Amino acid sequence: MTTSSSAKPTLAVIGGTGAEGSGLVVRWAVVGYPVIIGSRSQEKAASVAAELSAQLPSGSASIRGDENGAAAKAGDVVVLCVPYAAQEGTIAQIVEGCQGKVVVTVGVPLQPPKVSTVWRPAAGSAAEEAQAQLGDGVRVVSAFQNVSAAHLKDLSYTVDCDILVAGDDKAAKAVAIELANAAGMFGIDAGPLANASVAEGLTALLIGVNIRHKIKSSGIRITGIGRAEEQ
Amino acid sequence: MTTSSSAKPTLAVIGGTGAEGSGLVVRWAVVGYPVIIGSRSQEKAASVAAELSAQLPSGSASIRGDENGAAAKAGDVVVLCVPYAAQEGTIAQIVEGCQGKVVVTVGVPLQPPKVSTVWRPAAGSAAEEAQAQLGDGVRVVSAFQNVSAAHLKDLSYTVDCDILVAGDDKAAKAVAIELANAAGMFGIDAGPLANASVAEGLTALLIGVNIRHKIKSSGIRITGIGRAEEQ
Repeated sequence: MTTSSSAKPTLAVIGGTGAEGSGLVVRWAVVGYPVIIGSRSQEKAASVAAELSAQLPSGSASIRGDENGAAAKAGDVVVLCVPYAAQEGTIAQIVEGCQGKVVVTVGVPLQPPKVSTVWRPAAGSAAEEAQAQLGDGVRVVSAFQNVSAAHLKDLSYTVDCDILVAGDDKAAKAVAIELANAAGMFGIDAGPLANASVAEGLTALLIGVNIRHKIKSSGIRITGIGRAEEQ
Repeated sequence: MTTSSSAKPTLAVIGGTGAEGSGLVVRWAVVGYPVIIGSRSQEKAASVAAELSAQLPSGSASIRGDENGAAAKAGDVVVLCVPYAAQEGTIAQIVEGCQGKVVVTVGVPLQPPKVSTVWRPAAGSAAEEAQAQLGDGVRVVSAFQNVSAAHLKDLSYTVDCDILVAGDDKAAKAVAIELANAAGMFGIDAGPLANASVAEGLTALLIGVNIRHKIKSSGIRITGIGRAEEQ
């Protein structure tokens, strides 16, 4: 593990074998973030890591795979990118390795088959559930909920979707906003972790937009913030 | 009242004396929708109606004022544009006049002083609360939550914010989408009324964005739907 000496933090992407996760992995590795893909199966994690590495241009950071617990332990920042149904079980595997770190939750609570109707767990959002399960020693931030997995792995594809970053710790939000910007997106401070429910709910709404418009990648953009001058 | 023979439906804008409501009133009247402003006070409604009428170019539709109950009765479509704290009391005044009609709810549940943190009533959204109070004889649609009141009355100002339209009745949603488009915005079917909670919650999020960016009119835009080809 030579990545720990890198200037950029090592990212543990739990669920990085999935469509959304692997798309993010590729976009981060190509700009120099060493990535450890976490999966329930070490073998699967390693195999997807090898597959994604092979697609990257030379000079990209390394991608390796490990089982969830070890991946979380080895990461400086943990990105939790699993389907909502798997969230609780996955967090149980990584809770120890996440202590003291920033954990970015990407998953969206959806209630099949009505995935275009907003649904929220009792805590209000998957992110707040994650925070409760991970405990006060972890700074949870929610982000990347609204980015369609379609085309994400295609580095020539420009993602036309802002990243709403919600969390109760400003420095932790800055980490996620930097990850969004590094991946070629635009990260925006969306307020406290309670506002994660808005970003998560937007995904259900966008799934409905995709269905009605027969497309795969609707997204959202915050207007009026004068980004042309800011960037 | 000569407006009933107009090709366009007469709009009763309950709370049309406020900043958001009066901005919408102006934008609808100028494109030919006769408007009745509703207020608790007939006198205030009439006075604001006269004031707004004076700002309109000739050829605009008429704006008149009445107390809430009478305004709702006289409207073909009712737009409920009152602060959340006043919603229940206002609906009690208009419930009879709304029967059989489309009611568009614009209000957002906010919990001062934390108006940039999402807050939801037990029903999930102000729109669902309105539907429960108005009863099954009324088709409630939520829309216009995310449009900043700032500049809305200035007709030379282009509103850079899409209108998320949530509701359980497709024809009722089409009415609100038409009203959005007529006002120079872009109305989007956002799914069932349950999704109103997302649009309402976005307003809290945007208030926070406004504060952090020191602006007054952040908004949202749905990307990826190929609107250039559609419009």
